[in-house]
Amino acid sequence: MNKVRVDIWSDIACPWCYVGKARFDKAVQELDGKVAVEVRHRSFELDPNRKPGDTAPVVDMLVKKYGMSRAEAQAGEYRLQDLAKAEGLEYQAEGRDHGNTFDLHRLLHLAGERGVEAEVWQAFYAANFADEASIFERDRVVEVAVAAGLDKDEVVAVLDDPERYRDAVRADEAEAAALGATGVPFFVIDEKYGVSGAQPTALFAEVLEKAWNEQRPAITPIAGAEDADACGPEGCAI
Amino acid sequence: MNKVRVDIWSDIACPWCYVGKARFDKAVQELDGKVAVEVRHRSFELDPNRKPGDTAPVVDMLVKKYGMSRAEAQAGEYRLQDLAKAEGLEYQAEGRDHGNTFDLHRLLHLAGERGVEAEVWQAFYAANFADEASIFERDRVVEVAVAAGLDKDEVVAVLDDPERYRDAVRADEAEAAALGATGVPFFVIDEKYGVSGAQPTALFAEVLEKAWNEQRPAITPIAGAEDADACGPEGCAI
Repeated sequence: MNKVRVDIWSDIACPWCYVGKARFDKAVQELDGKVAVEVRHRSFELDPNRKPGDTAPVVDMLVKKYGMSRAEAQAGEYRLQDLAKAEGLEYQAEGRDHGNTFDLHRLLHLAGERGVEAEVWQAFYAANFADEASIFERDRVVEVAVAAGLDKDEVVAVLDDPERYRDAVRADEAEAAALGATGVPFFVIDEKYGVSGAQPTALFAEVLEKAWNEQRPAITPIAGAEDADACGPEGCAI
Repeated sequence: MNKVRVDIWSDIACPWCYVGKARFDKAVQELDGKVAVEVRHRSFELDPNRKPGDTAPVVDMLVKKYGMSRAEAQAGEYRLQDLAKAEGLEYQAEGRDHGNTFDLHRLLHLAGERGVEAEVWQAFYAANFADEASIFERDRVVEVAVAAGLDKDEVVAVLDDPERYRDAVRADEAEAAALGATGVPFFVIDEKYGVSGAQPTALFAEVLEKAWNEQRPAITPIAGAEDADACGPEGCAI
C-alpha cells in the first residue's frame, strides 16, 4: 500500500459530517508530504425513510421529529454555526431545508466513478450548509453537480433513473451497519481503525500517522524462534 | 484474505530445510479444516558461488569448506539422519552429494507457474536426501522434475537457458537479505511474522493459528473517539 485509505461514511444532511470532514481535511493537509491519504465517500442516510421531495425547514423537522421546542432546535443550529465557523466554514443557522439525500448519494457514486468525488462532495456540503438556496431541489442539484465537474446529461440521467447507483448506496449502508456504525460521520482508516464523530483534527492526524507507520511493518520474529536449527553460508547448526 | 500465506525460503541442499518443512507440513495438516494455508517456495542458495556441475560428496565438502574432521562431519550427518527419521523422513547419511542448486531453484519457479510447486519441491528434497542417486546430475534432475509433474521439454528448455527464472531466484534472495534472513529455512507468515529454522510443529501451528485469527480483525475503535459529536437517526448530538 502506498496510501492510507480512509472510508468516510456520512450524509450531506449531517452537520457534524460537514464539520468533521473539515477537521479531517485539515489533518490530511497538516500531514501533506508525510502521509499519503486516499479518501472514499461512503453513503449513510440520516433519514432514509423520508420520501424524495418531502422537504421541510430544518428547525420544523427537528421540532416535529425529535419533539424539541422551536427555541431549542434553533439554538442548536446556532451552536452548530459557531462550531462550523471555528473550522472556517459558513453555516446558515436559519432557513436551511432538510430532506431525503438518496439522490445526492447516488450522484456521489457517479462522481466517484468520474474522478470528481471530492469536488462534488464538498460542493453538496457547501450547497446544503453555506448557501441560501436549498439543495433539495432538482435544478439546484443539477447546477451544483455540474459546477463541481459532472456532466449535465449524466447527472440528469442518474436523477431520472432511481435504480442507478441504488445498489452502491445500499451496499455502503449495509457495510456501515455491519461495522456497527449507528451515526455519522464514521471514519474507517485502512480497514482497521474506526473513528466516530467529528473528532478534533489532532486525533485524525494521530490515527492517520499511526496507520501510515503500520503500513511498513518489520517482520516480527516469533519469540523463541530466532535461534533454531538452520543452515547458512557457514554451514548447518548440528 | 482467505488463507494464511506462508513464504518459505529454503534450499534443496539444506538438511534443516528438509526437516523443517516436514514439521511445518504437519502443523498445516493438524490445522486442516481450521486454518487454510497457502505456501510459496522462495529461493535461497546455501552455496551460490559454487560452480554449476561442481559437486562433491557432502562429507568431503564439510571437511574442506568448514574445516571439520571427517569423523565430525560424518557424525553430523548421522545426527541429521536421526532427526529426519523422527519426522518420518528417509535420509542418506552417507554418499550424498553437495552442489550448486541454482538450476533446481529455477525449476521450482517454473513449477510454481505450472501449479506443481509443492510436488516438485518435495520430489527434489526426496531426491537429494532420501534417494541414493545424486540430484546434481542433469538427467536425474529432468527425471525427478518430470515425474513430479513438469513437462519434459519445458524442463530441458529451462536447464538449457540459464537466464530463465534467474531474476526470480535473485529477487527471492534479495528479499531474504532485505528481511535479514542469513540462514534457512526461513518462514514468513502473512508478510508479518518471521520464523527461523526447523522449529517444532507446535510452534508452526501456533503461529499459523495466530495469523489466521488476526485476519479477521474487528475494526478497532480509537480510544476517546467513540462518543464524539455525531448525527444518527435520532438526531444530532448538540
